[in-house]
Amino acid sequence: MADFQNLGEFSKNNEAYVAGFASGGKPMPPARKALLITCMDARIHPEKALGVDIGDIHTVRNAGGRAVDALRSVTISQQLLGTTEIYVVHHTDCGMVTFSTPQLQSIVKEKLGHEDHTHYHEFSDSEQSVRDDIKLLRESPLVIPGTPIKGGIYDVNTGKITWLD
Amino acid sequence: MADFQNLGEFSKNNEAYVAGFASGGKPMPPARKALLITCMDARIHPEKALGVDIGDIHTVRNAGGRAVDALRSVTISQQLLGTTEIYVVHHTDCGMVTFSTPQLQSIVKEKLGHEDHTHYHEFSDSEQSVRDDIKLLRESPLVIPGTPIKGGIYDVNTGKITWLD
Repeated sequence: MADFQNLGEFSKNNEAYVAGFASGGKPMPPARKALLITCMDARIHPEKALGVDIGDIHTVRNAGGRAVDALRSVTISQQLLGTTEIYVVHHTDCGMVTFSTPQLQSIVKEKLGHEDHTHYHEFSDSEQSVRDDIKLLRESPLVIPGTPIKGGIYDVNTGKITWLD
Repeated sequence: MADFQNLGEFSKNNEAYVAGFASGGKPMPPARKALLITCMDARIHPEKALGVDIGDIHTVRNAGGRAVDALRSVTISQQLLGTTEIYVVHHTDCGMVTFSTPQLQSIVKEKLGHEDHTHYHEFSDSEQSVRDDIKLLRESPLVIPGTPIKGGIYDVNTGKITWLD
């Protein structure tokens, strides 16, 4: 039987969330017609950082906030749920600058005993990675041409998002 | 010049978030050693729904909360940042039950003029999709064997998460 360290507290906390939940009945398409792509980092709470309500925006998150992992989601968001603008936010002190794909493949081989051919999409500069991801989105045949795409950097020590020109 | 509908309000809201941000200086590894995989749906605010603080958990989100798009992130989370348990939460009224991959590929071809070979990983039942994703994670050579993985369904009308046995 798996032992979950957090399940009890998550369940208790969810009861409080339910008790205060007054946002039922909202439609599936995001009210603000916006999609955010950002990192899985624990120090980012995207909805609070942007001040959005339940039902407002789509949020896609992965290691680094990389667009390459988000394309399937972007297409669904744009074509089926009507979002019209994209925000790509990476952040300071990101784990993606701390390793290389060959290093992590070696760790996987050593720890798990498997050959690992994953590209981990690490980067060395968060601002450049945002610009690279905006370029990837603009050049993707799956993204609606002309979609406004804004990049930003979230400071994990202050919560401030600095938008890039 | 791209016209962003939400940038002004996001920026203003972020100022308020920064003013109340008292969580700086937290380390990169998640304090609760947990990783959540959930959907990009706008009606889910995961950190509030689980009652977690800044720095507590990794959150990976994509269309449907599918594990297949999350594997790169899971490996980074487990091998480099020490998370030890995974929560997979899909939800009621999910957009992933409303279409098929061939339908969306046709829409892309019609709207964007490109042949689209993406598998969109839609599903017909949110509970089954959670179970399928837990199975995918358990069978993946990239996930640490024996990792506790808990599935749940989030009700978009009440905010309640029902955990699966």
